[in-house]
Amino acid sequence: MDSKQFREFGREAIDFLANYYDTIRDRDVLPSVQPGDIIKRLPKDAPEQPEPWQQIFQDFKDVVIPGITNWHSPQFHAYYPTGTSFASIIGGLLSDGIGIMGFTWIASPVCTELEVVSMDWLAKLLGLPEEFLNSHSGPGGGVLQGSASEAILVGLLAAKDKMIRRLKKQDPDLDEDLAKIKFVAYTSDHCNSAVEKAGVLGSMKMRLLKSDINGRLRGETVKKAMEEDKAQGLIPCYVVCNLGTTGVCSFDAMDEIGPICRENNVWLHVDAAYAGSALICPEYRHLLNGIEYVDSFDVNAHKWFLVNFDCSAMWVRDSYDLINAFDVQRIYLEDVDSEIKIPDYRHWQMPLGRRFRALKLWIVMKSYGAEGIRSYIRRQISLAQYFAKLMKADDRFIIEPEPSMGLVCFRLVQGDELTKKLIENITKKKKLFMVRGSFRNRYIIRFVICSQFTNNEDIEFSWNTIKNEANTLIENDVVHLKSQAITTIHGIENICVTEKSK
Amino acid sequence: MDSKQFREFGREAIDFLANYYDTIRDRDVLPSVQPGDIIKRLPKDAPEQPEPWQQIFQDFKDVVIPGITNWHSPQFHAYYPTGTSFASIIGGLLSDGIGIMGFTWIASPVCTELEVVSMDWLAKLLGLPEEFLNSHSGPGGGVLQGSASEAILVGLLAAKDKMIRRLKKQDPDLDEDLAKIKFVAYTSDHCNSAVEKAGVLGSMKMRLLKSDINGRLRGETVKKAMEEDKAQGLIPCYVVCNLGTTGVCSFDAMDEIGPICRENNVWLHVDAAYAGSALICPEYRHLLNGIEYVDSFDVNAHKWFLVNFDCSAMWVRDSYDLINAFDVQRIYLEDVDSEIKIPDYRHWQMPLGRRFRALKLWIVMKSYGAEGIRSYIRRQISLAQYFAKLMKADDRFIIEPEPSMGLVCFRLVQGDELTKKLIENITKKKKLFMVRGSFRNRYIIRFVICSQFTNNEDIEFSWNTIKNEANTLIENDVVHLKSQAITTIHGIENICVTEKSK
Repeated sequence: MDSKQFREFGREAIDFLANYYDTIRDRDVLPSVQPGDIIKRLPKDAPEQPEPWQQIFQDFKDVVIPGITNWHSPQFHAYYPTGTSFASIIGGLLSDGIGIMGFTWIASPVCTELEVVSMDWLAKLLGLPEEFLNSHSGPGGGVLQGSASEAILVGLLAAKDKMIRRLKKQDPDLDEDLAKIKFVAYTSDHCNSAVEKAGVLGSMKMRLLKSDINGRLRGETVKKAMEEDKAQGLIPCYVVCNLGTTGVCSFDAMDEIGPICRENNVWLHVDAAYAGSALICPEYRHLLNGIEYVDSFDVNAHKWFLVNFDCSAMWVRDSYDLINAFDVQRIYLEDVDSEIKIPDYRHWQMPLGRRFRALKLWIVMKSYGAEGIRSYIRRQISLAQYFAKLMKADDRFIIEPEPSMGLVCFRLVQGDELTKKLIENITKKKKLFMVRGSFRNRYIIRFVICSQFTNNEDIEFSWNTIKNEANTLIENDVVHLKSQAITTIHGIENICVTEKSK
Repeated sequence: MDSKQFREFGREAIDFLANYYDTIRDRDVLPSVQPGDIIKRLPKDAPEQPEPWQQIFQDFKDVVIPGITNWHSPQFHAYYPTGTSFASIIGGLLSDGIGIMGFTWIASPVCTELEVVSMDWLAKLLGLPEEFLNSHSGPGGGVLQGSASEAILVGLLAAKDKMIRRLKKQDPDLDEDLAKIKFVAYTSDHCNSAVEKAGVLGSMKMRLLKSDINGRLRGETVKKAMEEDKAQGLIPCYVVCNLGTTGVCSFDAMDEIGPICRENNVWLHVDAAYAGSALICPEYRHLLNGIEYVDSFDVNAHKWFLVNFDCSAMWVRDSYDLINAFDVQRIYLEDVDSEIKIPDYRHWQMPLGRRFRALKLWIVMKSYGAEGIRSYIRRQISLAQYFAKLMKADDRFIIEPEPSMGLVCFRLVQGDELTKKLIENITKKKKLFMVRGSFRNRYIIRFVICSQFTNNEDIEFSWNTIKNEANTLIENDVVHLKSQAITTIHGIENICVTEKSK
C-alpha cells in the first residue's frame, strides 16, 4: 500500500466509522454468530500475494463487523463502559500514524513531556492533592499504564520493594526471600479479578476481606485482619482500596482504611478504575476523603473519560518507590539529564516499550474541555437515575444496593431462578446487553450506562424490554406453578415459599 | 466533536500522515528541542471549554510534531525498528474506531476468533511446529501480548506455577513459599533489560550467564550453572534463550540449551523479539534448531513485521500452563462453551482488558502477502550488508561481531574515546541517529536498518556522514597528539599505545 492508496483507504475508513456511529442505533447490540463461526469462515493460511485494499476493506465489513459486540450501542449496558470518542480515535490515529516509541526522553521527547503535562491536567481536574503532580517539587507524579490490572501489580511490586528496604534498614542481615513470603495484601471481597490476580502474579497472599452490608470494606475489618496476621508473624504490606467496585460500584471506606495503613507502614493503592472519572465533578470530590494516606491512585481514562483503551492514569506519592523497584539499566538506554524534572517513565512501569498514549488523552481534554466531560459524566449518572426511577415504580423489581454512578443493580422479587431466566431471555434476543452479578448471595442483573449515545428514549426502550420479558416470565411462572399445584395440590405453598426465599 | 467534524478532522489527519511519509526524507531524524522545552510551552491546565478541532490540529503540528524523533526517517538507525506501515495504521484506526474490548468471547467474538486465526497464519509463516497452532488438536496455541517484556514475565510466572505443581505431586506437604524462593532463572549476559526485569518483577533470581566470544549463550554454560545451583539446594526453573540479542543480535545455542532444560524440567522461553520475523524467509529457518524443546516463543510483530506497537506474538506448547497460573474467575465474566477450541485469552495474559490487536496484524498480512513481507525483510538485511561492505573498505573501522540481520556494530581502530566522540558529534547534528553498545568490553556503535524507506543512497549518505565525522575527529586527534608530542616529546609513543589499546 503506497501513500496514495493509504489516502484512499484512510478516507473510506474514516467515512465508514462516521457512518457506523451515525447508524449505531440500527444495529443489534449483540452479534448473530456462534462460537467458531468466524474461524470457520476464514482461510487457514495467510495469502502469499498482496491483496488490494478494497478487498481487505470488504472482508473487514463482511467478516469483522458482523462479529463484534457493539459496545457503543445505546443498548449496551454490560460490564462498565470502554471509552471512545471521535477525539480519541483521531488521537490514536495520529499516534499510530507517526509510529514513535517513548522508552527514553531522546526516543521521542514529546512522548514523555506531553505525558508529564497531560497527567498534571488530569490530576488537577480530578482534584488530586498537589503532591501527585509531576510539576510539584516533590518526588510524586503521574504516569500512563496499560490497564488498572497493571497499575495494581505495579503498586504491589513497589510496596514489596519498599517494605524490604525498610526491613533491611532495621536489620541489614535480613533474609529478603524469607521476609517476602510473610508479606500480606488486603482488599475487599468485592474487588475486581485483577486485584486477586495481582496477588497471584506478584507472589503475595491477597486476603479478600468481608465488606459490610453495603459492599464497602471498612477500616475495622482491615485492622482486625492485620492484627491477626501480625500475631502469626506475617507482615502486612499492601492494601487495595476500591473506589467503585466492579460488581456493585461500592466505595471502600478510604478515610478509615488510610490511617491503619499509615500506622502499619503499609502501601495504600486506590483502584478507582471506573468511578474515578466522576471526580471531575466537584459534587463527587468527597469520595477523596482519606487521599492524604494514599501511596498510589489509578483511574482508567479508557473507561469513563472518553479515551480509548489503553490509557490507565496512575499517580504515585513517591516515584522513587517505582524506580527503586523497576530500574534495570542498559548502555543503549540513557536517562535524561535536565534541570526540569523529567521522568524516565520506563522505570515507572513493567514493560520497556511505551506507546504515545498521552496524545489521545490530551486531544480528548482539549476537544471536550473540562466542562464537556463534566456534563457527559452528569448525563450518564442522570440516565441511570432515570432508569432506576422507572423500575422503582414496579414492585416486582428490587433495586439493591442503591444505584451508584452509572450502575443500577436489580433482581426480581420472585428470586434467583427467574432473574437468571430474565437476563438469559433478553440476551438471546440481542437487543439489550447486560451482565449478571451477585450481591448478598443473590443473583443480580447489572445495568450500566455505557454508551455516550444513550438517551431517555433508549432508557425507556430498555425498561420496556425488561418489563415485557418479566411479564412473560412471571405469567409463565404462574401458569407453571398452577400446573404444579394441580398435580401436587398440597405442596403449592411450599413451592411459592421456596421460590421467593431463594 | 460530532461525526461531521470527525469526517473533516479524520481526512485532514490521513492527508497529514500521507504527506508526513512522502516528505520524511526532508526532516531531521532528531528533534531540535531541549529537555523541558515542550513542558514549558504548554498551558498548565486543561481548557475549561472545548477547543475546535482546527485549533487542536494546529497545536499538534506546532507542538507535537517538532518534538518527535522520526523513527521512520531513512536515517534512523538506533535501537531496533518499531513497526509501522500504512496497512497497520489503518488496522489501528479501524480497531480504535469500533472501540470494542475482547476479554471474553461474548465481549466481541471476532476479537478472539480473528486472533486465533491470525496467530495460526503467523505461526505457519514463521515455520513453527504445528503443536503451537491454535487449530492443532493439542493444548498449544498463540496469543497476542503487549510486549516482549510481558511475554517473558508471563513465561516466568507460568514456569513457576508449573514447577510448584510438579513438586507438589512429589510431595503434597510441600511448603510452596519456601520452595519458590529456591527457584532460579537463567539467561545470557547479552539479554535485553526486560529479561532481567522479569526476574525482579516475578521474584525469581535471574542469573545472567557469560556468553561465548561471539555473544552466544552455550549449553555447557547453562548446564554448569544449573549443576552449581542444584548442589546448593536451589531449583532451576526458567531459561530465556535469546534469538537475536538487543546489543549485537547474537543467537543463543537453542539446540544445546534445549536438551538441558528438558532433562531438568525447566521451562524454556525464547525471546526472538526482533530477529524472529526473519523466520518468514526459509533461508533463516535453521535458527529454529532446538524448537522441539521450547515451551514458549515470542516475536514482536511490532518490531520487524510492519505492525504498529503493541503486538507481541507469543506461542505456548501447553496453554493450560498459562490458564493454571492466571485464571481468576468472576461471575460477570463467563467462559465460552464450544465444540471448536476457543481460548479464553484473558487467562493467557496478565491484564484483564484486551484490545483488538489481531486486526492490524491480519490487515498487514493480507496487504503485503507473505511474499511482500519476505522481500521487505530481505531488503533490510541486504542494506545492512551494503553498509558493512562500504565500511569494511576503510581500515580505520572495525566491524565486530559479524553483522547479523539488519544490525552492523562497529568502532574506530583508535579506541573507545574516539568512537564515543564519533557518535556524540553525529548525534548533535541530528541528521543520523544511532545508539551505542558494548561488546567484549569495548564501546561500539550500533547501526540498524530500521526504516522501510531506507535505500542504497541513504546508506551511502549515512556512511559518508560517519566517514567525514571520523576524518575530522582523527585529524583533530592527530593534531592533538602532535601538540601533546611537542610539549611532552618523550611520551608520544606511550600516548599512541594507550589510545589504541583502550
